[in-house]
Amino acid sequence: MMHRLYFHRDSKRGVEGTYNWLVDEVKELGEALKTNEKKALENEFADVIAWLASLANITSIDLERAALNKYDGKCPKCMRSPCQCTF
Amino acid sequence: MMHRLYFHRDSKRGVEGTYNWLVDEVKELGEALKTNEKKALENEFADVIAWLASLANITSIDLERAALNKYDGKCPKCMRSPCQCTF
Repeated sequence: MMHRLYFHRDSKRGVEGTYNWLVDEVKELGEALKTNEKKALENEFADVIAWLASLANITSIDLERAALNKYDGKCPKCMRSPCQCTF
Repeated sequence: MMHRLYFHRDSKRGVEGTYNWLVDEVKELGEALKTNEKKALENEFADVIAWLASLANITSIDLERAALNKYDGKCPKCMRSPCQCTF
């Protein structure tokens, strides 16, 4: 979905510009976390994931597959579920 | 999935600690983007989304619903698909 919606524009902005937007959105999420207002939080989480998806699109990474490959129902470090890492 | 896997540990770490991990993972993604190695990129994208999911879990936000609510097939600013915002 994000590909169809934003790919033409994200490509023009480039990887570095899109990454910088992602960093800004993560900062906004940090601000929203201090307020603990549900609507603001939903908005900022949505923005972070949208920019993450854009960045994945322009770097040709399949975000969902990358996540499922690494976290396929068990912790990639201790291989257990629930995770039992001690760090 | 992330809830079952990590919720007990993320809850103990708290919102601020989990947010700080997210920020670190976003920085690692930034480093991986400079190398442009596909495997490293997939790994770092997976980590960012895993920590974002953890943060959503402990703040009781439904990440997928939040994203779909805001980006339901059209740009939330210009309401078009593809987006035609000019910023």
